[in-house]
Amino acid sequence: MTDLELISQHRCFGGWQRYYRHASSAIGLPMRFSVYIPPQAERGRVPVLFYLAGLTCTEETFMIKGGAQRLAAELGVMLVSPDTSPRGAGIAGEDDDWDFGTGAGFYLDATEQPWRSHYRMESYVTDELYGIATRDLPGDASRTGIFGHSMGGHGALVLALRHPDQFSSVSAFAPIAAPTQCPWGHKAFSRYLGPDTETWKAYDASELMTRAHRPFPQGILIDQGLADSFLAEQLYPEVFEHACRQADQPLTLRRHADYDHGYYFISTFMHDHLRFHADQHC
Amino acid sequence: MTDLELISQHRCFGGWQRYYRHASSAIGLPMRFSVYIPPQAERGRVPVLFYLAGLTCTEETFMIKGGAQRLAAELGVMLVSPDTSPRGAGIAGEDDDWDFGTGAGFYLDATEQPWRSHYRMESYVTDELYGIATRDLPGDASRTGIFGHSMGGHGALVLALRHPDQFSSVSAFAPIAAPTQCPWGHKAFSRYLGPDTETWKAYDASELMTRAHRPFPQGILIDQGLADSFLAEQLYPEVFEHACRQADQPLTLRRHADYDHGYYFISTFMHDHLRFHADQHC
Repeated sequence: MTDLELISQHRCFGGWQRYYRHASSAIGLPMRFSVYIPPQAERGRVPVLFYLAGLTCTEETFMIKGGAQRLAAELGVMLVSPDTSPRGAGIAGEDDDWDFGTGAGFYLDATEQPWRSHYRMESYVTDELYGIATRDLPGDASRTGIFGHSMGGHGALVLALRHPDQFSSVSAFAPIAAPTQCPWGHKAFSRYLGPDTETWKAYDASELMTRAHRPFPQGILIDQGLADSFLAEQLYPEVFEHACRQADQPLTLRRHADYDHGYYFISTFMHDHLRFHADQHC
Repeated sequence: MTDLELISQHRCFGGWQRYYRHASSAIGLPMRFSVYIPPQAERGRVPVLFYLAGLTCTEETFMIKGGAQRLAAELGVMLVSPDTSPRGAGIAGEDDDWDFGTGAGFYLDATEQPWRSHYRMESYVTDELYGIATRDLPGDASRTGIFGHSMGGHGALVLALRHPDQFSSVSAFAPIAAPTQCPWGHKAFSRYLGPDTETWKAYDASELMTRAHRPFPQGILIDQGLADSFLAEQLYPEVFEHACRQADQPLTLRRHADYDHGYYFISTFMHDHLRFHADQHC
């Protein structure tokens, strides 16, 4: 039983929107997360979806801007969203950049100093928060999915591929789909994982998919806006698409004219993602 | 034709989420507002709903947190939300309090110095922004409603009662329903309108309703959370309820156990409000 401090709770669509803080053993610092508990959880465990947010976001972003709670309450799905990095690690330079350090944990376990002591978001999400959600909170460990946006889309794809026993459904909005090939990924991986680019492949969804065989037989859903200003330089969905073909992995990659990288895009297609996951768990 | 500067636009549910800035003649300063234009506006003018936000909010709050665009796109309703006050008026003390001055314009035309030069939110909303929405933007002036939250719920009720020729449907979330009787209203009205409390009645929804007769024959919808920490001291829905009975005004006042004052409450009942207005306009 993890000692969870309830920061706030709000009645929402017949369920509860809650914010928690706890001393994280994986991170070694206090961490915050948000959870939406649907009304159906009063009667037993419910499917749980982890949402990983993008650069600069917090545990609040998805719950405020995603527009997911209405349908989650209908479907009876619990939603959990962690913060995007440790905060207050006290590492020189951690707050200097918006795309590295605080708010930019990239959902990996850093191997390099000075990051490796606290920047362990993979362990935090897949071990500690997963445990909290399916033990202390009413999530059902046998019906668990993961999705996310941008850096969090990368996180969702990578964590699902690295932990297929934990996450049986996965989707993403505008993910960083081949981080070993883009500037955001180079910057983060070179400092969190070190100069050996071979080690980076373990956190690149496209590389992982190339080495897999049909890991998600019920398919993967990705939505991508074509007016996304990060698309050309940072996201590379076509690399992931190619990897899926090689791996015989069913992929629905939808490209949407005019849509950009933000939450107006995400909220537009949120219901499709919730239904995609719920169809596999409910 | 008002000279509108498009600050940003985002594709959203097949329509457009837009943010504008313009030199406001009513306010005498630059003002910002947001608009959601549904896909149906490509084929002609559409019903328009003005949403007035509460203390400390901006033109962004409703569009980010309200969760209204999905259904607005289905119903073909345009949404317009102004900022909650002038900004940068340069008046000593305007930024000192969160419940007065900047972010707290109370949707009235101030009569007292130093506020009366710029703090003219009633004229701004009912004249200038109304004109922009129904002339420069594709709103239909014959199908117009207004709603809002807290201070903006006060604004919606008062502006609808003072301008029934302009707004034919009105609803509110947790409105300040009798501002002449509560601390927020006393603080704002005494400084914007002066010490003569008789003049305050012109901006008190309950006072205005008492003097009216069935101004909105199709009814008024109000939602109120019973875990709202401002309910007892600031909101007084029961005073407005009593005034409606006196005025033979149909009112649906729904009291919801456990719900608080925030946007998790508002978003829960947002669709009911959109349908309430659309039933009168679509």
